[in-house]
Amino acid sequence: MSSASLDARHMAHALSLARRAVGRSWPNPSVGCVIVRDGRIVGRGWTAPGGRPHAETQALAAAGEAARGATAYVTLEPCAHHGLTPPCADALIDAGIVRVVAPFTDHDPRVSGRGFARLSAAGVAVQTGVMADKAAEHHAGFFLRLAEGRPRVTLKLASSFDGRIATATGESRWITGPEARAVVHGLRARHDAVLVGAGTARADDPALTIRGWGAVDQPVRVVASRLLDVPLLSQLARTARDVPVWICHGPDAPAETRRAWEGLGARLIACPLSGRQLDPRALLSRLGEAGLCQVFCEGGGTLAATLLSAGLVDELVGFTAGLALGAEGQPSLGALGVDRLAEAPRFRLVETRAVGADVMHRWQRN
Amino acid sequence: MSSASLDARHMAHALSLARRAVGRSWPNPSVGCVIVRDGRIVGRGWTAPGGRPHAETQALAAAGEAARGATAYVTLEPCAHHGLTPPCADALIDAGIVRVVAPFTDHDPRVSGRGFARLSAAGVAVQTGVMADKAAEHHAGFFLRLAEGRPRVTLKLASSFDGRIATATGESRWITGPEARAVVHGLRARHDAVLVGAGTARADDPALTIRGWGAVDQPVRVVASRLLDVPLLSQLARTARDVPVWICHGPDAPAETRRAWEGLGARLIACPLSGRQLDPRALLSRLGEAGLCQVFCEGGGTLAATLLSAGLVDELVGFTAGLALGAEGQPSLGALGVDRLAEAPRFRLVETRAVGADVMHRWQRN
Repeated sequence: MSSASLDARHMAHALSLARRAVGRSWPNPSVGCVIVRDGRIVGRGWTAPGGRPHAETQALAAAGEAARGATAYVTLEPCAHHGLTPPCADALIDAGIVRVVAPFTDHDPRVSGRGFARLSAAGVAVQTGVMADKAAEHHAGFFLRLAEGRPRVTLKLASSFDGRIATATGESRWITGPEARAVVHGLRARHDAVLVGAGTARADDPALTIRGWGAVDQPVRVVASRLLDVPLLSQLARTARDVPVWICHGPDAPAETRRAWEGLGARLIACPLSGRQLDPRALLSRLGEAGLCQVFCEGGGTLAATLLSAGLVDELVGFTAGLALGAEGQPSLGALGVDRLAEAPRFRLVETRAVGADVMHRWQRN
Repeated sequence: MSSASLDARHMAHALSLARRAVGRSWPNPSVGCVIVRDGRIVGRGWTAPGGRPHAETQALAAAGEAARGATAYVTLEPCAHHGLTPPCADALIDAGIVRVVAPFTDHDPRVSGRGFARLSAAGVAVQTGVMADKAAEHHAGFFLRLAEGRPRVTLKLASSFDGRIATATGESRWITGPEARAVVHGLRARHDAVLVGAGTARADDPALTIRGWGAVDQPVRVVASRLLDVPLLSQLARTARDVPVWICHGPDAPAETRRAWEGLGARLIACPLSGRQLDPRALLSRLGEAGLCQVFCEGGGTLAATLLSAGLVDELVGFTAGLALGAEGQPSLGALGVDRLAEAPRFRLVETRAVGADVMHRWQRN
C-alpha cells in the first residue's frame, strides 16, 4: 500500500473516532486522533463529552512511551493556544511525535495555522490535505458556527405520501414505521440539540430524548416559543432537570411563566422578534453563542417554513410513508410565500433508501 | 445447469419478450414465447400490436421445421378457442412441439385449463409453475380486467418535497428534472392508456404522448371530464386524429360539445355520476370494456383523490423533488375524507432510487 493510501486509511480511522464525539463535544469540535508507530496503532482518542480532554491528549495517554517517533493523525489542526487545557501542539511535541497528518488548517482564529507553525518550528513534519472533503463534511457544524455564528440546521420532515403530517383531526401517531422512528433517534444522537416549535410541543407532548440506542448522552432539547405557551405539565417540563431544556422566547413572554420554567430547571434564552415571530436567524445565533454546532429541527410546519424561508436549513431529511391523507390533512410545511418556482428553496439529493416500510431521503442546501 | 433452472432461464427470456408487447397488445394479454430445441433457441415471438398474431404463432413461424421435437416456453397458457385466429394449442401440436412450459393456467374462462388439456390429449408434455410470481406480476393488468372488469391503475404523483404540484399561482413547470420526466414517458409506454382529469387537461394543456423514446406505439389518451370542458384548441383536441383521445363524460355533458369532440376524432364514453363527479369505478369499468388492461393516471389532485378513496389505485409512483413550495402551493391530492390514520389508503414500498436530481418511489396496494 502506498504511503498516501496508508495516510488516508489512518485518517478515515481518526474520522470514525471523531464521529463518536458528535453531539457531545460542543462547544468544541468533535476530533479524532490515531497515533501510529512502525505501521502499528499505538493510541486512539476522541474529544471527551463536554469538549475536554481533547482527542490528542487521550490518544497520547493511550500511547505513552510508544508515541516517541510516531505519526499522529488528527482530524483537525492541533490547538496552539492555552485555553482550559495546555495546547495539543505542545503535548504532541513533548511526547516525541515526529509527524502530524491533518486534513486542513482549523478555522478557529485562535488556532488557524498556529498549531502547524508550532509543530514545524519544533521539527515535526506536518502534512495536510488528507481526506479534506470528508473531514470538512464532518466538521461542517463547527465551521459554520465559526463563520456565521450559528449552528448547522438539519430539518426532519416525516410525512404521508402526499406531504401531510397529521389528519385533519390532528392524529399523527404513527405515520412512519418503527424503523424510521429508530433512525430519527439515531439522528438526534448525531446533533447537539433537538429543536421544535411550541405548536409541536403542545400537540405531540414529545420527550425529544434518544430512546432505544442504549446509554447515550442526550442532546439539549430546545423549544422555540415566543410566549412560552408550553404546558408546565408537559414531558419536557417534567424532565427538564434530567435532560437540558432550553426555551427560546420573545421579549413579550410573561415574566411569571419564565420564572416557572426556570424553577423547573429550564434555561431561558430571550430572542428578538421579526414581525410576529421569533427572528429565526437571531434565534440560531443565540444557540450558536451558547455553544451549539448542530441542531436537529423536528418541526412543526410553521417553524420549518420560517427556517426554510430564511435560508437557514442546511440539510433536509425526509421520511415518506406509504399512506395518503389528502388535502384536509395538516401540511408538513407552513406558508413560504413562494409565488414562482424560481424562488423556491432548493436542495440537492444526497441519499435515498428504504427504511423499513418508508422511504428516507436526505438533501443538502444547494 | 439443472433442467429446472434452465426452464426458469428460458421463461425469464419469454417474459422479457412479453414486456415488448406491453401497452400495445390490448385487449389481449402481452405474451412472450421462446422455442428451444436441443438447448438452442430456434424461435422467439411476442404478441403483435393490437393483440394478433399471438406470441406462439410468431415464434413458430420463426422456428419453422426446427419446432419439431422442441419445447415451447410461453408466459401464459396457450389459447384453445377459435377467436379471430385459430387456437395456439393446435398450432403448437401441428408444429410438432413435444413439451410446453408455462407459469400457470390462464384466467380467461375461454382458455382456463383447456389449452393445457388439448396439449396433453395430443401427447404434449405440459409443465406449469415456472416463474409463476414474475409472470403473475407481468399479467396483473390483464388478470385484473378479467376478475373485476377494470384496468389496473398506476397513479403518478410528482411533487415538491412537501407534496405540492404547483405554486399558488399555478406554476408547475418544472418541479421534477428531465431524468424524472423521461422515466414518466417510459412509464406511459408500459401502459395501454394515460388518464388525466379535466382540470389538469385545462391547466397544463398536456400532449400526454411518449417523447424521447424513439418510434413507439402511443398509449390512448383518456380524459375524465364530466362536462367536457376541455378547450377545443388544446393539444389533445388538435392531435386526436393522430393519437387516440377518449373522453369519459357525464350524462349532462352538452350534446354540442360531444359532437365537436367526435368531429375532432375523439371517442366519447358516457359514464354515470356518483354525487357530483363521474363514478370512478364505473369509469374504469367502461375502460375495461373498451379493452384497456393498464392505465397510467397522471392526476390532477381531484381525480387522484377520487381513485384513492374508492380503493382503485393499484400502484403509486412518486417523484419527490428537492424544493419546498409551502402550504400555499397546490396539493398533490384533493380531499380524501380521512379522519383517522387507520382509514388512510395504505401502500407497500416496492422500490426507491434516485432519478437524476429527484427521488423515485414505487408502492403497491396493500
